[in-house]
Order: sequence, then structure tokens, then C-alpha cells
Amino acid sequence: MSSTGRHSHVFLTVLFCLVMVSALSGQTRDEPRIPDIPGYVTLKCDFHTHTVFSDGSVWPTVRVDEAWREGLDVIAITDHLEYQPHKKDVAVDHNRPYELARSRAASLGLILVRGTEITRRMPPGHFNALFIEDAAALDKPEFLDAVEAAVSQGAFILWNHPGWKGQQPDGVSRWYDIHTTLLEKGWLHGIETVNSVEYYPAVQDWCLEKDLTMVGNSDIHAPTFLSFDFAGGEHRAMTLVFAEERTREAVRDAMFAGRTAIYFKQMVIGKQEYLEPLARGCFTLRHGPARISGTGSCNLWLTNTSDIPLYFETDGEDPLVSGPESLSLPPRSTVLFRIAAREDHRSGTFDIRLPYRLTNFKTAGAASLRTEIHVSVTLTE
Amino acid sequence: MSSTGRHSHVFLTVLFCLVMVSALSGQTRDEPRIPDIPGYVTLKCDFHTHTVFSDGSVWPTVRVDEAWREGLDVIAITDHLEYQPHKKDVAVDHNRPYELARSRAASLGLILVRGTEITRRMPPGHFNALFIEDAAALDKPEFLDAVEAAVSQGAFILWNHPGWKGQQPDGVSRWYDIHTTLLEKGWLHGIETVNSVEYYPAVQDWCLEKDLTMVGNSDIHAPTFLSFDFAGGEHRAMTLVFAEERTREAVRDAMFAGRTAIYFKQMVIGKQEYLEPLARGCFTLRHGPARISGTGSCNLWLTNTSDIPLYFETDGEDPLVSGPESLSLPPRSTVLFRIAAREDHRSGTFDIRLPYRLTNFKTAGAASLRTEIHVSVTLTE
Amino acid sequence: MSSTGRHSHVFLTVLFCLVMVSALSGQTRDEPRIPDIPGYVTLKCDFHTHTVFSDGSVWPTVRVDEAWREGLDVIAITDHLEYQPHKKDVAVDHNRPYELARSRAASLGLILVRGTEITRRMPPGHFNALFIEDAAALDKPEFLDAVEAAVSQGAFILWNHPGWKGQQPDGVSRWYDIHTTLLEKGWLHGIETVNSVEYYPAVQDWCLEKDLTMVGNSDIHAPTFLSFDFAGGEHRAMTLVFAEERTREAVRDAMFAGRTAIYFKQMVIGKQEYLEPLARGCFTLRHGPARISGTGSCNLWLTNTSDIPLYFETDGEDPLVSGPESLSLPPRSTVLFRIAAREDHRSGTFDIRLPYRLTNFKTAGAASLRTEIHVSVTLTE
Amino acid sequence: MSSTGRHSHVFLTVLFCLVMVSALSGQTRDEPRIPDIPGYVTLKCDFHTHTVFSDGSVWPTVRVDEAWREGLDVIAITDHLEYQPHKKDVAVDHNRPYELARSRAASLGLILVRGTEITRRMPPGHFNALFIEDAAALDKPEFLDAVEAAVSQGAFILWNHPGWKGQQPDGVSRWYDIHTTLLEKGWLHGIETVNSVEYYPAVQDWCLEKDLTMVGNSDIHAPTFLSFDFAGGEHRAMTLVFAEERTREAVRDAMFAGRTAIYFKQMVIGKQEYLEPLARGCFTLRHGPARISGTGSCNLWLTNTSDIPLYFETDGEDPLVSGPESLSLPPRSTVLFRIAAREDHRSGTFDIRLPYRLTNFKTAGAASLRTEIHVSVTLTE
Repeated sequence: MSSTGRHSHVFLTVLFCLVMVSALSGQTRDEPRIPDIPGYVTLKCDFHTHTVFSDGSVWPTVRVDEAWREGLDVIAITDHLEYQPHKKDVAVDHNRPYELARSRAASLGLILVRGTEITRRMPPGHFNALFIEDAAALDKPEFLDAVEAAVSQGAFILWNHPGWKGQQPDGVSRWYDIHTTLLEKGWLHGIETVNSVEYYPAVQDWCLEKDLTMVGNSDIHAPTFLSFDFAGGEHRAMTLVFAEERTREAVRDAMFAGRTAIYFKQMVIGKQEYLEPLARGCFTLRHGPARISGTGSCNLWLTNTSDIPLYFETDGEDPLVSGPESLSLPPRSTVLFRIAAREDHRSGTFDIRLPYRLTNFKTAGAASLRTEIHVSVTLTE
Repeated sequence: MSSTGRHSHVFLTVLFCLVMVSALSGQTRDEPRIPDIPGYVTLKCDFHTHTVFSDGSVWPTVRVDEAWREGLDVIAITDHLEYQPHKKDVAVDHNRPYELARSRAASLGLILVRGTEITRRMPPGHFNALFIEDAAALDKPEFLDAVEAAVSQGAFILWNHPGWKGQQPDGVSRWYDIHTTLLEKGWLHGIETVNSVEYYPAVQDWCLEKDLTMVGNSDIHAPTFLSFDFAGGEHRAMTLVFAEERTREAVRDAMFAGRTAIYFKQMVIGKQEYLEPLARGCFTLRHGPARISGTGSCNLWLTNTSDIPLYFETDGEDPLVSGPESLSLPPRSTVLFRIAAREDHRSGTFDIRLPYRLTNFKTAGAASLRTEIHVSVTLTE
Repeated sequence: MSSTGRHSHVFLTVLFCLVMVSALSGQTRDEPRIPDIPGYVTLKCDFHTHTVFSDGSVWPTVRVDEAWREGLDVIAITDHLEYQPHKKDVAVDHNRPYELARSRAASLGLILVRGTEITRRMPPGHFNALFIEDAAALDKPEFLDAVEAAVSQGAFILWNHPGWKGQQPDGVSRWYDIHTTLLEKGWLHGIETVNSVEYYPAVQDWCLEKDLTMVGNSDIHAPTFLSFDFAGGEHRAMTLVFAEERTREAVRDAMFAGRTAIYFKQMVIGKQEYLEPLARGCFTLRHGPARISGTGSCNLWLTNTSDIPLYFETDGEDPLVSGPESLSLPPRSTVLFRIAAREDHRSGTFDIRLPYRLTNFKTAGAASLRTEIHVSVTLTE
Repeated sequence: MSSTGRHSHVFLTVLFCLVMVSALSGQTRDEPRIPDIPGYVTLKCDFHTHTVFSDGSVWPTVRVDEAWREGLDVIAITDHLEYQPHKKDVAVDHNRPYELARSRAASLGLILVRGTEITRRMPPGHFNALFIEDAAALDKPEFLDAVEAAVSQGAFILWNHPGWKGQQPDGVSRWYDIHTTLLEKGWLHGIETVNSVEYYPAVQDWCLEKDLTMVGNSDIHAPTFLSFDFAGGEHRAMTLVFAEERTREAVRDAMFAGRTAIYFKQMVIGKQEYLEPLARGCFTLRHGPARISGTGSCNLWLTNTSDIPLYFETDGEDPLVSGPESLSLPPRSTVLFRIAAREDHRSGTFDIRLPYRLTNFKTAGAASLRTEIHVSVTLTE
């Protein structure tokens, strides 16, 4: 064998490492600016992604790199247990995606959750088992056996895309007996209220009624770049988890406790109790205090400190002062907030809470979140 | 087996197809605007890409989708023959990437070139065999046997990244005896003058001396989104092929005939004979004819109709008229082009060719391309 | 007087010229790409702008610089005749804005139209007199006398913003007797169908009924930058004039002949006869001819070559082939255009015209423009 | 007089107010994110702007609207006292620009500083008198009389653009006897180290030697939109004033105390004592503490929380740990910060301060600012 015919394993390993290291060098992480809420850090999570190990089109490490690039803190790779269209080329090993991605996640400072997708016809549909130890142990013919195997590992069981047109051609989410069975056994912990590009408002109400965790995921198969126009401001659907600290265990605790919201397109979806402090953390009124003489008006600056757009609409009247009927604040923007004194007002300094709704923050019944803009106003004659 | 335990193959095939079809729906193709030249269409090509079938991190179809999205016309998938770091998980089959990507390319209207990368220590280094019929036939221990097998299939043989620091730690491209052997046998047809983020000016001159084709490729392993800041205007390195028509055969003919240039970062690199008409196709002077009285001046509009920025610097004097010393035209922009009459000029209407260099168009010796701006001027006293 | 106390006029003139010359150096012109139509060049025009010489806030030259920067070809400065809120500081001279801006326009290659705004209560409202010779001659107490003075100079008389809430608080455009008088005298030639951020569909129909020219203008008072988010893709309202050549006389002829359309936000508004060829000039189908076997499908590339977005919706069926129900093409984009063969079709090659509507091209009654996508398809069994 | 001939003053006032109110409605303020420093708020100021009342091209209110839009906190309008090229059209009144702009500034929450520009040949050149009470009192034939009149009003005297090519064709800033006279009298308080697009490093050193305040201004004449490509990330030159509170008096105090820096293109220019805390406020290291075993490495996240880009270059070695040689952080970005343990290190947890320079932060002699990146590292064998 000539010298040009030989190629040492050492050389090739070096080559490979060069490629691995350089993938994110010079890249920046685009973090959507979303505030923490009192007592918790807000972590950006995607609990539903695929790789070449089922019907996705990327290597597991790509899911980690993309997540770091897009500003996520936590991801799960959840390849299908029962659906392996690449099996002619890619050996079936349900634990392999996690194993291949684990060190990359650790190196980038991301939390990787081990998971898998139990993939059945509707009913029951598809379910992610999250925070498991061994995905292969879930590969059982009977659906309930698979779920039991997951639960015995401490899994969080998530019902995926109940209204997906691939399984519900009319787009209607339906609750079947099997779901009651799961609920009664304590084997159902959350439902995807948002999956990919779909939002199921009816499911949001199910979660409130049945005390289940609301989750929103990308269910991404292709590289995210081929699915979202990042330059145009698009982002993948994600779950905001309000965790006590930035650890996998704290994420798991928050998921079981239902401390989540969903960031989907320009919307935030979730329970009133989490949306309220989240919204309050997004905006601030500046450069007051306000002073108005007579029935005049004055301007303050209203700043959106977050990357979530804020669409305010007035939701009632204050007896002393009126604010604008509606206001749109793009991400990280400041606009003028003009308040006017009503006729025949008293003089003095008042702490006023102008009532508004945020039309893109969706609580029970897909209703707009009520919020207030606090302003201290000094009125004179 | 319960009904929820069964899942028909038909159902899963439908699921898979939904995913496949939707990957590019709603996506737009971002075509860099690069003009055709007289007699040829200008095709944007990348002849060096990797997938999970060697050390890349995407499924072969992703290379096609990305290429369509980024505005390419032609790609080759060139997985390493001898380097298979994923072989524990992905079965080795050198023809498989092409077979998996072929129908997707046809569906999207892209030309897919079958290729592979012969991967050896330096010397001789790495070589792409392009336009082949059977990659597996090239998997031979002796380097020259591998090349011969390629040539016997009609391959275009491309020497990859001769100055790559993975093989030449000082970054210097070196010509070894084995390369002379290849050249003398007629087994070497082109060299990567640009690979990934590297440009080798010395190699550009080799190509001119030895009548080899200049090629620029991305050598991409990760999804392109993780390597380029598209929103910031970055693009992958690509070869511009001047082909008689938009067919694989015409691309192959152009490659063997050396009708190429390289579009790399903000540069165009190539032979004078192709850069000249390409540059002339990029700009146009508008809203004349110009009229100047005395030693006054007038403005015309200079428009860059392409997506290649144009950096003009004056390269000599015209006896009648002076133009600006330098001018920068961002992609698709129009700027004012001010010309002034010199003292003691004659009166009359003159066809003037103001001499300029385009500092980002690189010909032999990495010199800036000479070009002219034609302007018809009427001078009066 | 000490040497530091003196300052020569020559020095100050040099200073002034430096400022004037440098204002647009290095600036690029952002031309919206809008196609010509057969027989005519498409000129981008704004016939309604203000300066400090009435209630605007910029010097007349700024209107020229802005217009060049934003890609316009023609502007008129139309300061109010009767409304001079700055007269305490700025001397009243109705011809002065034109005189101050004229040489700048000539230097930049823009066409400057002399105009003024006759400013009365509703009825009759506000009217621009365009292509006049002497604005001061129109400063007459009686409205009809002012119009007559304009007409005697060959003016094009434009009724401005008939539905403006400053004069019609309910936003309804109303036709009064005085407008009939003007029309019967031949003293009314066009109406603003679009003014600033308002579109009056009823006025569009008036123009069709009464054979008046449709015009859209910015009516800009502040610098345009303070009114439009250019970075976000906004543009000022403008009139597209289909002129025989790029001269003021040809623009005037086209205006009197009614050869116009309006480019407003993402809409094009006008007569069917001009919108049809304009739309056809905006898109092209590429990389065919299409071949379909059986009831399969194939993709072509549909390219929007313009900066006007194109929103297609299907408007009927072809017996052989179906296309997508709807398609959105952002500016200068390419998308996949998938066509499918219907069942039981004949074999052969067919020239097919798939019927669509462009929902952002508004003809009579604000209806969407009908258009067709031509495709040559070869169908086999 | 017919009814259409009359137009009431009331109507026109309403019209005018509508225009005034709407100018910034819906507009957002683009605030460059620049941190406060301990003990002070950082205010963004431009102390040199022009209007139609000298050789500028906008109405005084436009300067206020632009400043609000571009995120400034403080501006001065400083029209030339002795240079009035518009006087044929605009009545000369040196106090008028301030009077016209005052209420707009108050309404928008901006601080407007009354000023004027004493405009003489070089020497002495041009000087801004800032924080004055009456600009007209400075209109005196003798330069020193003009300065004395300003000083008697408590003015801050700023020497403008000492190296401006309009007065120093070779671009060299020269110190003349008259400047020594000013300095000795206590009549010179600051110098423009940056004016418009020019930076004078020599002047920066003058300021340090002579204890003068460094100031950077736009000296804008045209609308800012015609001078800067905001969409491309450009911004006007501005002075960062470190004030005790957001009031005019506090700004004046800070100016006299020399508490300033200059934000110019991608640079920050100023005294070490202010640049140090400003730089430290711009970045933060996240998601540690770092743990390294053996001679391995680990990644932390380095975040630029500001809108100033940060260009780090290593400036020395730490005996235990090495960091990257250079790092570029675009505005509001996060990158990976990889640290590696050196050979033969001790085990333990160490507080390490890696020495860097910020190449775009310019201190005395235009040298790059020294800074440190603090990292707590636990090293094990």
C-alpha cells in the first residue's frame, strides 16, 4: 500500500474534531428577550423534535446547535418509537439520539431532556414520554404498556397535537375514553396546546379543567432554517417554563407543577397566574411623574423591554384620566403614551391604574389578558 | 393486539409524505442576482457538500432544500469514500446520498450531480470525482486506482482545498509530484481556489498556468444556516458556471471547458475573459446623455443591477472628463455618478470610456479587474 | 475690526456649497422595482408635498433629496396658497419653493413640477394646481377665480383628499354642486383616490364614471423618515404615471390622458387597462416546460420580479390542470408553483391559462384584478 | 365673498394641530442601549444641530422629533450667529429656533439646551455657546466680545471641529494663541473631538492635557435620514453625558465637570475613568461556574447587553487558564466563550481576571481600553 493509500485513524479523528468545534464558532445566539417572573427563571424549551433516527432530517447534534443559536435553554429529542422510515440506512436504537447529542448540549450549556414519541393511530394518538431513562424499554406493542413503562421511569407524559389534521382531518381535538383512562391512572400530565404552526384553543381549556400542563412545541423534522423565516422575525413554537433554577430537575418539577406558558408566533398562551407577572415584566412607563393642568394632556414613554410584541386595548375607564384606546409596541420599542385629564377632575396627585387588555396574551377561552398601566399623575386646575 | 397497538404502514407513509411535501411550502428562494454573459446562462453551483452518509450532519434531501432556498441551480453531494465516522449508525453505501436526494432535486427543478470525495492524506490530499455513475466503484485502496475508476466513468476530477490547514498547517498550497502525475495523465481538471471560508490566490494562478478550472465550494457539513448569517447578507461560496443551457450535460461541458468564476464573500474570482462580461452585466449608467457647460459638472445615475457589491476605483485619466475617484455600490443600488469637464476642452459630443478597476473582482495575481464606464457627454463652452 | 471679527462672503459661500454637495454623497437611491408597460415608461410620482413655505417642516430642497433617495422620478411641491402658519418667520412668496428646489432637482435628474394648493373649506375643499407657471397669480379670494387662473396657465386641477376627516369627520367623500360646476367647465382633471394613509374606494369609482385621473399622493409635511418606517418596508403613497418618455411634458400628457395607477402600502389601485399589463410585468414562470404523467404533479418556479408583493387567489378551474388555491410572493421572491393533472385527462401538450385574482390589485369597485398564469404542460398517461 | 372663499382662522388652527399631533403617532423610539455607570445616568446628547434659521434645511421642531426617534435625551439647536444664507426668506432672530422647539421638546420628554454657534474664520474657528439665556446678545463684531457675552450668561463654550477641512484643508487640528487666551480666561470648556463623520485623536489628547471636556456632535444640517443609513445600523455622533439625574441642570454640571464620552460609529471615545465602568456595564459572563478537568476546556456564554459592538483582543496571559485570542460581539448578542486550562495547573477554585483590550474603546493616544473578563473556574486533575 502506498503512502497515499493509507490514512490513519488519528488523522481522521482530528479532521472530525475540527469540524465539530467550528460549527458554532463565530455564531451568535439570538435570545428572545422574555422576562423572569417573581420567584422563577423563565426557560425557553422545546420538548418535541426529530432527527434522522426516526423521520427527521438532521443529526441529533444539529438539534442542539440550532437550539443554542435560537436562544433556547432546554430541548428534548423525541424520535418516534414505532415509525422508522430511515431504518434501511440508519440502525434502530431508541436511545442513540440522546447519547449522540448529550455531550454537545453539555458543552454549549443547554439542558437536554431524554425523551421519545409513542406513535399510535388516533385514539390515542401520539404521546411524548419526557425525562425518561431508557427509551428502548417503551417499545411495546400495547399502548398502555408503553405508557406504563414510561411512567415507571418517572416520565412526564405529554399528549401531542390532539387536533392535528394528519389524525383529525377536520382539525377538531377530541377527547376519547383512552384519555380518560390515562388521566384517571395519573398517566397524563400535559397536552400540546400548540404544535408546530397549530394552536388548539379548546385544548387550552381542557388543561385548565383537568389541571394539565399547557405545552407548545415545534415538532420540527427539517432544519429549523427551512421552516422559519428568522430574518423576518419568525421563531419556533416554544414552552416557557418557570423554574426555580436552571437545572433539568427544576424544569421537570415545573412541568409537573404546571408552571408554563407558550410562546407561539406573536402570542403568549397560558394560565392567568403566569401571564400576569410575565406581561408586567415586559413593559415599563418612563419619564414621569406626569403633570396635567386643566383638561390638558401629557406624554410619558411606554417601553417594551421584551421581544414579545405588546398589543394594548383599553378595557374600561378611569374617572380622572384617559389613555390611548389602543397601542402597539413592537419588540424592544418605546412609544409615546399620552394621557389626558377628564373634565371637572379634582386636583392632587393620584396613583392611577389604567385598565387594558393585551390582545396577544391568551388566557382561558382564548380571552385577552387583563393588565393595568400604573401611572402617578398630578392634576391641577 | 389492541386497535391502539396496531399502526398500518399506509398511515405512516401518508404521515411521512405530509412532512416531505410541507418542508418548502411557503418558503421563498433567495436568488442572488447575477447576470448571464453573452452566449451563456450563469448557473450557481456548489460541487462539494456532505451528509450523514460521511461526516455531515444532515440527510441528503436537506442539501437539496437548502440549495433551492439559497438560490443555487446545481449541487453535488460528495461524501467521503474513506471516512465514515457515522458508520456505527448509518450503513455505508456510497451511492445512497445521490439516490435519496435525486427525486427531491428533480421535483424542485435543481440539477443534482453525482459525486464523491476521495479522501487521502496530503499528498495527494482530497479530490472530488464529479459527474460519475457509481461511487462505490471508486472505493479502492490505491489512490490512483480510485482516480482511474472515476475517470473511466467520465469524471471531472477536482483537487479540494490544497491550502487547508487540516493538511497544510501553515496554510500554504503545495504542488507535489503526484499532482504532476495526475495532470500528465489528464486526470486533473480543476482545483478549489476557494473552499469554505478560504481563498487561495496562488491556486488561482496555478489554474491559469496549467489550464485548470477554478472552482469555489462550500464544503458544508452542518446545515448552512448554522454556518452563514443569511440575514446579515452572508452567502456560501459557489462556482458560477457559464453553461450553454440549464442541463447537467451543459454544466459538465462548461466545467471541462473552464467556463467558471467563483462568488466568494463579496468577491468574484476568475479569468479575465469571464469576469469582464460578468462585471459589465452588473451595472448601467442612466438618465443621460450628459451635458456640461464650461468646466462644470453633471450627475448621472449609476445602478448596480446585481446582488454583487461593486467597488470602483479610478484607473487612469480621460483627457476631457473626470469621474469620481472611487464609488461603492451595494447590491441593487443606485448612486449619483458625477462627471466634471476638464479645463480647455473642445466642444462637441464625445463617447467616453472612463477607466476603472473593480477592487472586488479578482483576476490573475489577485489583481483587480479593469473595466470601463461608458458615457456620452456633450461639452459646450 | 480684528481679523477674527471679519468673515468674508466668499468663505461662507464655500462653506454653504460644501454642505449642499455632500448631502447625498454616499447615499443610495432605493428604487421600488415596478415594471414598465408596453409602450410606456412607468414613472413614480408624488404630486402633493409641503415645505416651510406653508405648514411643512422642511426646506424645499429636502423634498427633492428625499424623493431621489426613495426612488421617485417626479415630484410637485404644493404649498398652501391661503394657509401660511410660518409667515411670522418665513416671507410669503408662492413661487419661492419651486425656485429654491429647481436646480437641485435638475442636478439629481428628477422632474420637478411647479404646483400649489388652493386651500378652502369643504365644499369645495383643497385642490392642487399642477404644471403651472406662476403660483402667485392663483392667490385670489374667490375659489373659482383661483381655479380659472390656474386653468389659464394650462394647469392640471386635482381635488385633494375628498374624504379627509379634517373636513369630513365621518370619513365619507361627498360630491357637491361646486364639483359638478368644475367638471362641466372642464376645470377638474383628477381626484386623490389615495392621500397620505387614506384610500377612498368610492372616489376610485367616481374617477371611472366621470373619466377623471386617479392620483395617490403622500401630502407629506414632516421629513418622510418621521412618517414611514422604511427599514420595515413602508413607502410613501405615489402615483404611477405611464408616460411616453421621461420628460415633464410627457408626464403632463399622461396625467391629462388618465394613464395612471396608485401604489399605496401593499396595493396597486387603478383602471383594469393599466393594472393588467403592470401585473403581467411583475411575475414570470420559470424552468419548464412542465411534464406530468398520470394524475401526478410537478413544480415550476414562480418569480416576482418586482417590489410589489403579489397575492394570488384562484378564480376558476381549468379542465386539465389545477394549481395552488393561493400563493403569496413577497417582493423579488421565487416560490414553488405546483400544478397537478386532473383525472381522465387527454395526453398531449397544452397551453393552459390558469385563472387567478391578485387580491392586492384593486380595480373598479375595489375588486381584485383578474389575471392568468400561462403554463405549457405535457400530459402523459 | 362666497362661502368657499372664506376660511376661518379656527379651522386652520385645527388643521395645523392635527398635523402637529400626528407627526410621531405610531412612531417608535429607537434607543441605543447604553448602560448607566455607577452613580450616574448615561444621557445621549447632541449639542450641535442646525435649522432653516441658519444654513440647515429643517424647521426647529424636526430636530426634536428626530432626536426622540433616534433615542437621544438632550439636544441643542445651534444656528450660526453670523451666517444666514436663508435671510432673504427667513427672518433673522437668533432666539427663534429655541422658542419654536421648546414646547415640542417638553411634550416629548426631551431636554432642549439653548445654544448658538459663533462662526468665525480660523483662527479662532467656530464655537458653540451652550446653556445660554439670550443668543441675540452674542451677536457682536469682535469674537472675544461674543464669547464674553456668552460666558456672562453662564455658557459652556465648545470649540467646534478644530480639524475641519473647510477651515484646515490638510485636516490637521491646530492650537492658536487665541485658544490659549480663551483657556487662560476660563472661557473654553470643551472641544469637539468628534464632529459629523470626523474623529480628531490629537484633540482627545488636548482635552486630557488641558482638562477640557470631550464632546462629539452630529453638526447636522439636513434631515438625519438623508445623512445616516439607520436601517444599516448607522447612528449620528453623540456625546454620552454621565449626569446625576435627568435634568438640564445636571447635564450642564456634568459638562463642566468633564463627565462625558463620545459614541461615534462603532467606537466609544473618552477618558479611562468613564470608559472602564461603561465597558463593564456592556457585557456579562453567564452560565457558570466553569469546571475543567485536566487540560480540557469549557464554554461559558459571553453576552453583550448593549447596542455598542464589543471587539475583544487578549492583552496578556493568566497562568492557569487561557481564553480566546479575540472575540467579536455584535450588539445584544451572545457568543460562546471557551476557556482552557494550562498544563500543570493546581487544583482548586480560582477567581480569574483574563486581561483583554476593547479595540473600539479609545482612551488617551487613541489606545484601546484595557478591561478584564472575570471568571470563577474550578480546576481538577
